[in-house]
Amino acid sequence: MLITVTDAAGGLPLLAPMSEVAGRMAIQVGAWALEKHQGGSGVLLGGVPGVAPGKVTIIGGGVVGINAAKMAIGIGANVTIIDRDLKRLRELDLHFNNTIKTRYSTLENIESLVHQSDVVVGSVLIPGKTAPKLVLKSMLDGMRPGSVMVDVAIDQGGCFETSKPTTHDNPIYDVNGIKHYCVANIPGAVARTSTLALNNATLPFVLEIANKGYVQAVKDNPHLLNGLTVHKGNISHQGVAKGLNMNYVPFH
Amino acid sequence: MLITVTDAAGGLPLLAPMSEVAGRMAIQVGAWALEKHQGGSGVLLGGVPGVAPGKVTIIGGGVVGINAAKMAIGIGANVTIIDRDLKRLRELDLHFNNTIKTRYSTLENIESLVHQSDVVVGSVLIPGKTAPKLVLKSMLDGMRPGSVMVDVAIDQGGCFETSKPTTHDNPIYDVNGIKHYCVANIPGAVARTSTLALNNATLPFVLEIANKGYVQAVKDNPHLLNGLTVHKGNISHQGVAKGLNMNYVPFH
Amino acid sequence: MLITVTDAAGGLPLLAPMSEVAGRMAIQVGAWALEKHQGGSGVLLGGVPGVAPGKVTIIGGGVVGINAAKMAIGIGANVTIIDRDLKRLRELDLHFNNTIKTRYSTLENIESLVHQSDVVVGSVLIPGKTAPKLVLKSMLDGMRPGSVMVDVAIDQGGCFETSKPTTHDNPIYDVNGIKHYCVANIPGAVARTSTLALNNATLPFVLEIANKGYVQAVKDNPHLLNGLTVHKGNISHQGVAKGLNMNYVPFH
Amino acid sequence: MLITVTDAAGGLPLLAPMSEVAGRMAIQVGAWALEKHQGGSGVLLGGVPGVAPGKVTIIGGGVVGINAAKMAIGIGANVTIIDRDLKRLRELDLHFNNTIKTRYSTLENIESLVHQSDVVVGSVLIPGKTAPKLVLKSMLDGMRPGSVMVDVAIDQGGCFETSKPTTHDNPIYDVNGIKHYCVANIPGAVARTSTLALNNATLPFVLEIANKGYVQAVKDNPHLLNGLTVHKGNISHQGVAKGLNMNYVPFH
Amino acid sequence: MLITVTDAAGGLPLLAPMSEVAGRMAIQVGAWALEKHQGGSGVLLGGVPGVAPGKVTIIGGGVVGINAAKMAIGIGANVTIIDRDLKRLRELDLHFNNTIKTRYSTLENIESLVHQSDVVVGSVLIPGKTAPKLVLKSMLDGMRPGSVMVDVAIDQGGCFETSKPTTHDNPIYDVNGIKHYCVANIPGAVARTSTLALNNATLPFVLEIANKGYVQAVKDNPHLLNGLTVHKGNISHQGVAKGLNMNYVPFH
Amino acid sequence: MLITVTDAAGGLPLLAPMSEVAGRMAIQVGAWALEKHQGGSGVLLGGVPGVAPGKVTIIGGGVVGINAAKMAIGIGANVTIIDRDLKRLRELDLHFNNTIKTRYSTLENIESLVHQSDVVVGSVLIPGKTAPKLVLKSMLDGMRPGSVMVDVAIDQGGCFETSKPTTHDNPIYDVNGIKHYCVANIPGAVARTSTLALNNATLPFVLEIANKGYVQAVKDNPHLLNGLTVHKGNISHQGVAKGLNMNYVPFH
Repeated sequence: MLITVTDAAGGLPLLAPMSEVAGRMAIQVGAWALEKHQGGSGVLLGGVPGVAPGKVTIIGGGVVGINAAKMAIGIGANVTIIDRDLKRLRELDLHFNNTIKTRYSTLENIESLVHQSDVVVGSVLIPGKTAPKLVLKSMLDGMRPGSVMVDVAIDQGGCFETSKPTTHDNPIYDVNGIKHYCVANIPGAVARTSTLALNNATLPFVLEIANKGYVQAVKDNPHLLNGLTVHKGNISHQGVAKGLNMNYVPFH
Repeated sequence: MLITVTDAAGGLPLLAPMSEVAGRMAIQVGAWALEKHQGGSGVLLGGVPGVAPGKVTIIGGGVVGINAAKMAIGIGANVTIIDRDLKRLRELDLHFNNTIKTRYSTLENIESLVHQSDVVVGSVLIPGKTAPKLVLKSMLDGMRPGSVMVDVAIDQGGCFETSKPTTHDNPIYDVNGIKHYCVANIPGAVARTSTLALNNATLPFVLEIANKGYVQAVKDNPHLLNGLTVHKGNISHQGVAKGLNMNYVPFH
Repeated sequence: MLITVTDAAGGLPLLAPMSEVAGRMAIQVGAWALEKHQGGSGVLLGGVPGVAPGKVTIIGGGVVGINAAKMAIGIGANVTIIDRDLKRLRELDLHFNNTIKTRYSTLENIESLVHQSDVVVGSVLIPGKTAPKLVLKSMLDGMRPGSVMVDVAIDQGGCFETSKPTTHDNPIYDVNGIKHYCVANIPGAVARTSTLALNNATLPFVLEIANKGYVQAVKDNPHLLNGLTVHKGNISHQGVAKGLNMNYVPFH
Repeated sequence: MLITVTDAAGGLPLLAPMSEVAGRMAIQVGAWALEKHQGGSGVLLGGVPGVAPGKVTIIGGGVVGINAAKMAIGIGANVTIIDRDLKRLRELDLHFNNTIKTRYSTLENIESLVHQSDVVVGSVLIPGKTAPKLVLKSMLDGMRPGSVMVDVAIDQGGCFETSKPTTHDNPIYDVNGIKHYCVANIPGAVARTSTLALNNATLPFVLEIANKGYVQAVKDNPHLLNGLTVHKGNISHQGVAKGLNMNYVPFH
Repeated sequence: MLITVTDAAGGLPLLAPMSEVAGRMAIQVGAWALEKHQGGSGVLLGGVPGVAPGKVTIIGGGVVGINAAKMAIGIGANVTIIDRDLKRLRELDLHFNNTIKTRYSTLENIESLVHQSDVVVGSVLIPGKTAPKLVLKSMLDGMRPGSVMVDVAIDQGGCFETSKPTTHDNPIYDVNGIKHYCVANIPGAVARTSTLALNNATLPFVLEIANKGYVQAVKDNPHLLNGLTVHKGNISHQGVAKGLNMNYVPFH
Repeated sequence: MLITVTDAAGGLPLLAPMSEVAGRMAIQVGAWALEKHQGGSGVLLGGVPGVAPGKVTIIGGGVVGINAAKMAIGIGANVTIIDRDLKRLRELDLHFNNTIKTRYSTLENIESLVHQSDVVVGSVLIPGKTAPKLVLKSMLDGMRPGSVMVDVAIDQGGCFETSKPTTHDNPIYDVNGIKHYCVANIPGAVARTSTLALNNATLPFVLEIANKGYVQAVKDNPHLLNGLTVHKGNISHQGVAKGLNMNYVPFH
């Protein structure tokens, strides 16, 4: 229960904090994977005076993307965000002012930027849908060996053709000389911060359930109802029932 | 008189304001020369959301260069400063934080950056010396047609091999499809601001001369003496005398 | 076809990129028109240390206005935005923090600010409506000779009483010593950037039309339908039909 | 002892923290004195969206001035710094970027800026010298009634013609409708912060004296010797002896 | 009439400017109350180099809170905003970037932050409702003596348990060594700015009333109708009638 | 040869780039060591909205410290720099404005800040001297388990009592639950950036040696001579000879 709880805007409020953590972590793990001892190219993303900074391309300007951008700018990388929503690019351009570049999402732009990048962050994910494959295997050939792909959409199947899920025990693997970081549970690396963030997001719902009992709470609050998966031994969430090919019995 | 007046640090305080004006103007005229109706490539240096900004390379990180950088960053261009003084690059990196890139000056770095640039500003000038030719004619071939070279060092002969002095009446000319802006008197374009700036710089000297008479003032103030060119019909400035091949008669 | 295509918010998505370009260009052309050789007052908008920067007043805080403000701040001018929507002024105040001043739009405030300004940008335009005349001819008398009016609303008739359309070949004219820049097609000056921006905005519609044929696409997408002007030899856009005094035949 | 201790640069390191505190406090007390209940003009220095911010003019760009500027910018005022040292104005212009205006110090500039200002901070002080009177009584007539003068140089006699020392018990007085804040011991208002700051500055000297005894410490450290006023019942500081018209007996 | 005029978003547009003024003033009066001569702890909120800045906690991240935060950051304080709306915390985090800390509102977080704070600003107010008591008297014991509570919600009863309304003549009182500033009419201190701000907000309504007469204006504009309190000798505002226990006679 | 080459300011120009790299890397490795899978506390240094950021204390505000601070601020940590040079703290306070806190270096301040810190960076190193032990083993007890100490001064013996050199193969070890990262060759992790940086710094010397032969170059350039360790089979550097207890034979 709870993961699919909704909010008034149709979002999933309990997932948002995890996207924030994952976006911020994407740059931290990308920088780490670039280190020589992880098999990376040995580039310091921020560069130093006289040496060019590394290039970071972030595909997808949503919650994950904006948090990744914030960190990448913060450490001094040369950052581009790609999105196919011009309205979003305008907001990002305004917010980050002269510290990022924004590019409209076309196959040509993606390929050209991937070739120049030291770290590519894939953050195109629509909860509940399979992520589109935006970076093809053939594009990796144009990259400097030891560069890094970080796929934050791995939970939805990943947005790189070459992505497959990894774990914190063995987080990176190599495809044609390019390092891939595809840990499905990135926030687990910073468990303390993640737990506090999740507590903040769940607290109002937990209080409502604690005060009323869950049956009454679910009756009163349609957003909580959306988060109810199992009730009286039956699957009470249509999507889950369908996904598992089981009977769907609405809450009553 | 006055132009070669010195200060305690060995600088030429009456020239500094003109370098500030010229540096700030370099980007204004570069942006203008990029316009389609001047024969430029039609690039807007700041780009817009979804379209990459133009690239500006500034060769020389002194007073001219830092003022040019300030303007170029301000309008949203993608800015790199090249210098061969690492200490200066460190200061610039610290000051501009994550809004510029700094590169050490080597022939390879200059060529590579010139090729990618929409506007190149040449600002390597040492007052009294001929500027070194840092951008060779052959490098122009790698640039996008309609890109722009602005040579602020044209007074000292220019720091591009293809530079020759122009005037405000006919400020730009073309070499191999690349526009050159080489007006020798850039500050004249903004005469009001330039005059006020010059007044501020000369005022202390003017007051001293007005109060004491110039003979006594020059006797009292060695910096004024350094600015004295002609006295009693003779050349009293060693450099000028040498340059004009005339007799040098020290002030007495 | 296409220009009047709408989006979910009722805006005209194919016009927005042109407003962004025009807003950014407004300051570039204003700075240029201030130059002595264009007949301007010779003010450098950014000033230099010890000399006050030029003043820029932007009338209208929409897409054009915010983009003009961004550039004017970037080059160091003293910038005020006037709008009659307090909510918008709050957003601008928050966004630009301590780098602009905002003023509520009254006749007195406009007159007082115009008198002090080196460049006035008129950016009050409502697509499809005639722009209101917010700066009267009489106000010009209080300005410093050689100051500059840039009317970005000239397509809708202009928002200065003294505006009349000009072209890139002869962009400025003089009224009572004040320079007017009223080029109807500002984005044409930076054709490369403008074209890329326009491509980004039209691409989704072009793809839909290419995939489905235009008849099906217009049937499926009411926003495309809003952009349809002529169909089977008849005017299919009510506003255009009315404007041209021709028969309106709805798409069928 | 201690106040006149010197450092390698010829400065007075034990006074610097007090200048920092006083500079930061100058804006706090100026904003307070503008309040209606203190007889001020009722201007909020930061303004609000749609209403112009107040104007602050800081005369003197040294330690006091830069700290006052930092606070004034921080609260959103419209800030100008006046100095007669162009080199210093350049540093301030670079540091504060587009958030202040710098003006060269002339009588005309001072008068013009004072007339427009809501708060004027006088921070031209040279330790040990009488401050020059830079704002004349006649200039007050051009100011809005209830505007505020804050004289941080009051210890050296003040840099406004109309300044006279006040105390925290009765900090402001009125001259021709203009409020004057001239508390000689501004840092006393924030005693906790001031004491900690002073401790930091004196600690190295205190440790040296504690470790060696003061006689040996003064022998070893010429900077400490410069801070020694009285020794064996005699005045051991030449300036103090002269100021008090007493015998000067060098330390031995 | 007028105070309860509404806008399309259900807000009270005539109150918003006063919230902006009050938020910005909250820090000004908090800094003043910290001064030794007001009985405060003598902390300078911005600190100085080497001495830690003061801590400011702002409870409530609405219009008042964001304006208070802007000022507190501007003077260099160490600022935390508490809110129970995660979406709002995200906006604030994004806007203020690395210059504030945001905390989710729980009793534990409030208590812990109040204990560390030099100034606590209470800005949780819902127009027309009694403010919740978020800081309990018992929490004051953990604060440094001479610290300051500023209750901007005092009009709605205050959001600290220990708040009671004060006036500009006697603005602060002491509870267990902690100074309380609870002036009900904070904007009155900066009457000039407040009046201009209020004029801007009321002008459109005043014009409508002046043009049409108030009866027609109220008929045409439901937002004006919401602001009508008394009509033909009867109470025409349901809330006011209820609050005063009088008859409610709808406008007709 | 080369490492001890000097510059006009008495510095070691070939070491400076390595200090820049090490300072920037210190935060990268500190953030990594905080991860749960390295045994860290699971804190994300930047926090997320609603959750406090991690605290970083940097002991020593030199080249290493300022570069570490830049990265730590960039990722959104709560940063304090400790130094015993007030002049340096002033420069840092001015440069970083309201994004860091500076504290004077006393045993009490160090202990108090270490206790609150998630990452402590030790960057007090004087080339050629043993680093002072500024963090004692006893101070670790006050820290949260899983917090991290990064000792950048490990080459000079380390500035934490509990430091001992480690390698990239096994970079961290545990003392009382606190992780220690003490890799002696931090720049090796980003070999590509480090090599380019080193090339920039050595190029002028390499060119001089290549042009003249090393004997003549060392004769002409005393800074090169300072970098000469062995010549004709003898130790030609006094410090090295002393350190190795071998005969010192001056270059001749």
